[in-house]
Amino acid sequence: MADHSEAPLPFQLRKLGHVVLNVTDLERSVRFYTEVLGLVVSDQDKDTLYLRGLEERSHHSLVVKRTTEAPMYERAGLRVFDEEELELCKRAFEQHQLPCEWVECPFQGRTLHATDICGTPLEICATMDRQPRLDMDVYKHKGAQARRFDHYQITIPDIEKATRFYTSIGCRVADYITAAGHPVGVFLQMKDTPYDLVFLERDGPAFHHFGYIIPDIQAMLRACDTMGELGWGKNVEYGPGKHAVGHSYYVYILDPDGHRCELLLPPIVYMDADDPPHVWDVVTSERTTEAWGLPPRESWFSHRSPFRNVTVTVPPAGGAPMTLEAYLQIAQ
Amino acid sequence: MADHSEAPLPFQLRKLGHVVLNVTDLERSVRFYTEVLGLVVSDQDKDTLYLRGLEERSHHSLVVKRTTEAPMYERAGLRVFDEEELELCKRAFEQHQLPCEWVECPFQGRTLHATDICGTPLEICATMDRQPRLDMDVYKHKGAQARRFDHYQITIPDIEKATRFYTSIGCRVADYITAAGHPVGVFLQMKDTPYDLVFLERDGPAFHHFGYIIPDIQAMLRACDTMGELGWGKNVEYGPGKHAVGHSYYVYILDPDGHRCELLLPPIVYMDADDPPHVWDVVTSERTTEAWGLPPRESWFSHRSPFRNVTVTVPPAGGAPMTLEAYLQIAQ
Amino acid sequence: MADHSEAPLPFQLRKLGHVVLNVTDLERSVRFYTEVLGLVVSDQDKDTLYLRGLEERSHHSLVVKRTTEAPMYERAGLRVFDEEELELCKRAFEQHQLPCEWVECPFQGRTLHATDICGTPLEICATMDRQPRLDMDVYKHKGAQARRFDHYQITIPDIEKATRFYTSIGCRVADYITAAGHPVGVFLQMKDTPYDLVFLERDGPAFHHFGYIIPDIQAMLRACDTMGELGWGKNVEYGPGKHAVGHSYYVYILDPDGHRCELLLPPIVYMDADDPPHVWDVVTSERTTEAWGLPPRESWFSHRSPFRNVTVTVPPAGGAPMTLEAYLQIAQ
Amino acid sequence: MADHSEAPLPFQLRKLGHVVLNVTDLERSVRFYTEVLGLVVSDQDKDTLYLRGLEERSHHSLVVKRTTEAPMYERAGLRVFDEEELELCKRAFEQHQLPCEWVECPFQGRTLHATDICGTPLEICATMDRQPRLDMDVYKHKGAQARRFDHYQITIPDIEKATRFYTSIGCRVADYITAAGHPVGVFLQMKDTPYDLVFLERDGPAFHHFGYIIPDIQAMLRACDTMGELGWGKNVEYGPGKHAVGHSYYVYILDPDGHRCELLLPPIVYMDADDPPHVWDVVTSERTTEAWGLPPRESWFSHRSPFRNVTVTVPPAGGAPMTLEAYLQIAQ
Repeated sequence: MADHSEAPLPFQLRKLGHVVLNVTDLERSVRFYTEVLGLVVSDQDKDTLYLRGLEERSHHSLVVKRTTEAPMYERAGLRVFDEEELELCKRAFEQHQLPCEWVECPFQGRTLHATDICGTPLEICATMDRQPRLDMDVYKHKGAQARRFDHYQITIPDIEKATRFYTSIGCRVADYITAAGHPVGVFLQMKDTPYDLVFLERDGPAFHHFGYIIPDIQAMLRACDTMGELGWGKNVEYGPGKHAVGHSYYVYILDPDGHRCELLLPPIVYMDADDPPHVWDVVTSERTTEAWGLPPRESWFSHRSPFRNVTVTVPPAGGAPMTLEAYLQIAQ
Repeated sequence: MADHSEAPLPFQLRKLGHVVLNVTDLERSVRFYTEVLGLVVSDQDKDTLYLRGLEERSHHSLVVKRTTEAPMYERAGLRVFDEEELELCKRAFEQHQLPCEWVECPFQGRTLHATDICGTPLEICATMDRQPRLDMDVYKHKGAQARRFDHYQITIPDIEKATRFYTSIGCRVADYITAAGHPVGVFLQMKDTPYDLVFLERDGPAFHHFGYIIPDIQAMLRACDTMGELGWGKNVEYGPGKHAVGHSYYVYILDPDGHRCELLLPPIVYMDADDPPHVWDVVTSERTTEAWGLPPRESWFSHRSPFRNVTVTVPPAGGAPMTLEAYLQIAQ
Repeated sequence: MADHSEAPLPFQLRKLGHVVLNVTDLERSVRFYTEVLGLVVSDQDKDTLYLRGLEERSHHSLVVKRTTEAPMYERAGLRVFDEEELELCKRAFEQHQLPCEWVECPFQGRTLHATDICGTPLEICATMDRQPRLDMDVYKHKGAQARRFDHYQITIPDIEKATRFYTSIGCRVADYITAAGHPVGVFLQMKDTPYDLVFLERDGPAFHHFGYIIPDIQAMLRACDTMGELGWGKNVEYGPGKHAVGHSYYVYILDPDGHRCELLLPPIVYMDADDPPHVWDVVTSERTTEAWGLPPRESWFSHRSPFRNVTVTVPPAGGAPMTLEAYLQIAQ
Repeated sequence: MADHSEAPLPFQLRKLGHVVLNVTDLERSVRFYTEVLGLVVSDQDKDTLYLRGLEERSHHSLVVKRTTEAPMYERAGLRVFDEEELELCKRAFEQHQLPCEWVECPFQGRTLHATDICGTPLEICATMDRQPRLDMDVYKHKGAQARRFDHYQITIPDIEKATRFYTSIGCRVADYITAAGHPVGVFLQMKDTPYDLVFLERDGPAFHHFGYIIPDIQAMLRACDTMGELGWGKNVEYGPGKHAVGHSYYVYILDPDGHRCELLLPPIVYMDADDPPHVWDVVTSERTTEAWGLPPRESWFSHRSPFRNVTVTVPPAGGAPMTLEAYLQIAQ
């Protein structure tokens, strides 16, 4: 496979689009995503559910498809500015011998199915059908009142390869995590807020989580309470807590099929794009990832959703993460 | 009518109970009280609606009855501790030649219809049917998520007579408002939080407002937003704001029939019951009733709901209140 | 020691008062209690710190004394209605051969040092000096903005003995926790909100935690953030979370000497005192103590503060609590 | 003056920068802006105060200068991407015969003082000194905890001229307000959230208000409370309320010199930049500007801060705005 570091792909990503994932029980997922996250159903047929956040004009930011097999991810969605840019995108993937082909997707303009340099299946388009914003229809709001799709995090074995690829097509490096100098995580941006794309070094490609912005901490607790009341109380996996690095309150929850979602409060704006990336070393830094409280449990690190029909590669072994389990052993 | 100041009635009020009011369109009131206040319907027939707050175990704190006439108040409800106390209550009203008689009211134990010394029609009982608390069923909560009935305010021409009456049957004076030494308002307590009963000197008896406790300011705004979305945006009469005297954020809203309701945040606790009443003079005090912002508009002072079949008396003329209208004239 | 179940002590507790605890570094404790909890210093000398909540009129609800030994608790404080009741209290303790003596305590009226039937050292008085309420001085508020002292929880080996004692002097049983029918926890009330006194069956008497009411979830997070920023991030022991039984959001934090404090949101009001106690069995109930999320870590159960010079007794062995550590083992 | 509609100025604005205003008492302004808004002082000398929001990396977003004359505005600040763009900007203003000259400003890179086509004095630069973000230093946060500068609103007599000018240098039209077809207000964007620049048709140029983003409604009330406590309670001019058009909760406050500031909650993101502008007609629309509650008082419309040494022009007379005063007359 070609080295892309010297030859930037001649197109620019504009923003994240959506994710496409599988579940085993569509009605259960409707209930979870509308009652807990507070997403709105834009469209639904017997096999597919199209969801959007309360302030989103685009038709969907989450596509949930019924499967009779193990629930996995199908694709991560990206957006380019217009149809012309989409043509350039197609040519760039071809030129670099990465898989790509035109497909038809409901409610989207012409769409490209492509595979990035790490093997992640992508779905790229320039336009989607429009829907009304519902952020002002307060009295219908439910659960976390999720406002908009914010970011996703994927684990891959080679962080640097992913970084070279995505920075060549319009992403900026916002922050790095290193372990004794070796990069183990990278936070990439397209919009003005941290972050759009996060890659962590582990076996992959596999989907760790996607994040939605919610209005306030009351909404976060309402989501947790709703999970408790609807029988998913144990799926509140980690938090509520506060990221020391990411500048945000969070909670990580698991949907009924085990897909992980982060709910987070309105982010800071990076108004000064010429800031150099912030490097944070997990070994030498005095700061931990959390501003206070306990580290995540082991499942938060190990459990991820594979992509359908994608081979997972394991990175050279590194240090074990500081899990809650390890922390409790040490703390005894 | 007898002077009660020397001869305390030999029974004790325990707490406020409920209010009974009339509306012209019951379905509209269901919508208002469940979507805006977030009250729960305990029971409903074609003419009457029984509502309670989310944490209330008693069957109802608000009874809404259909009328084909002008919408008024029927009765203010009070509670005594047990049936024995209720018997004492009956005898005390009889002894003082105040109207009282046993009646049957659905969902309530034996009930007394009586008239207080100012002419206010009362409904007094010791017990009500029980309902489950719904404060933990968060995902069903709506609007202001009203938790519990808190207090009511009535205008009457003689504050001192009312004060003597109610302090003789278990109320404590928490605060006074005076105008150049003359009492124009009194705040009475039975529970540990300010206030239960408020009397203001004006023509009356007439009902000014009742108040419900709501969990936080997010709930207050959700109530206002819901009113805007359901076509009652102009019925957000005053606030959100903060009482300088009453230690609480508030908003005053009007139901579709013009009955006024205050939504207020969880109150302070008066843990030291031997505090003397606080006296606050509207003329000489540097503090205004509001911590910041504008005074209430004229309608907030003048508009009240009469009691059905009750004659209204006018007090000796006093100074005009500082209305928003008067304030804007002065401020020009 | 006499059995008190048949012969009620002829006096009534009115409310909780305060707690008296030891710390090793008074300046550090000033910083913790004013910046994290947001308590106000009513008075301070070189060895003692008197603190109160923002809405409290009483001089102190927390007394912090410097020690050069291991930091423990000195006394749990209770209040009676007046000096006459305090005399009755003295005679009752004497009659039942429980230790009691008059002492002088700064800022308090005449004070009784007594020992309850479980061996817990008490400090009982009727009056305290007054301080202004500071709940309205919003711009000076810090951290959790703790409003008022709410409850305390003590572990003792014999729940039933404690229950008989405290119900005989004015407490009501609000809730029970049982394990296969055997009472392992009791929640007692004096005020209208859950709870005042909580006893759990374990070795004791030992102090598990005291609780303060805070205004909203924003205040809870501000306390956690402040702990992270001041170097106490690991002392956020458990939460933020929600009690399924106690109707409240909570966080448990440890002060720099390891004393545990619960911060909780404004509680529900038990407006119907004739409700029978709610019994909740840890073995047979479908509900867990938490509405969602993980159980407390082992230290939350095992770590408590002993009382100075008090012998700890161990109860007959019972089942192990469901700790976070045990949960993570099972969940693997 | 040249018509710019056909010949776009060959440079692009990147974002708003800051505003420069005068006050008569600098210490009073320090108190107002740090205690009420919660801004941070980046630098201060005896005549000038440099302030920034809690998450801002740029040295200042608000420059407050002492004056012995009437307090006015000096300049509205804009930012371009880099020094090269700043050169292009200079040439563009020269080419169009608009005043512009290089000046030195402390803490800013090379700076251009220029005048826009409506006569508004501008201060344009590409870089500023950096300061640490303080958004995570929660325990030091005060008042409204203002996070970042968001937008400003200026009144001018010719909306269409301003629109042509600013859209030619990188602004997009987000929304229009019309009165019976005639444009009376325009909302312009550079960042992804509504709005950056707002122009209303009235006599001008004059400064109506600038806005800061605050984290939540608790912060808004803390700002109002602080104003009440520090003696500025009457300067809470309008709100808290909710814009029906602007998708946001707001409060308008006046600083001690009468300069108006809006505090607003985190905005929605316009993720679909190809949305056509939304047109909203004040005459024919069923929706009012406010989601609920009362209209602004007359001063909110009429009171604005002039720019120093700038001549004000009056537009052709239009309809009177719906002020609170007019509303109360009608509503009587």
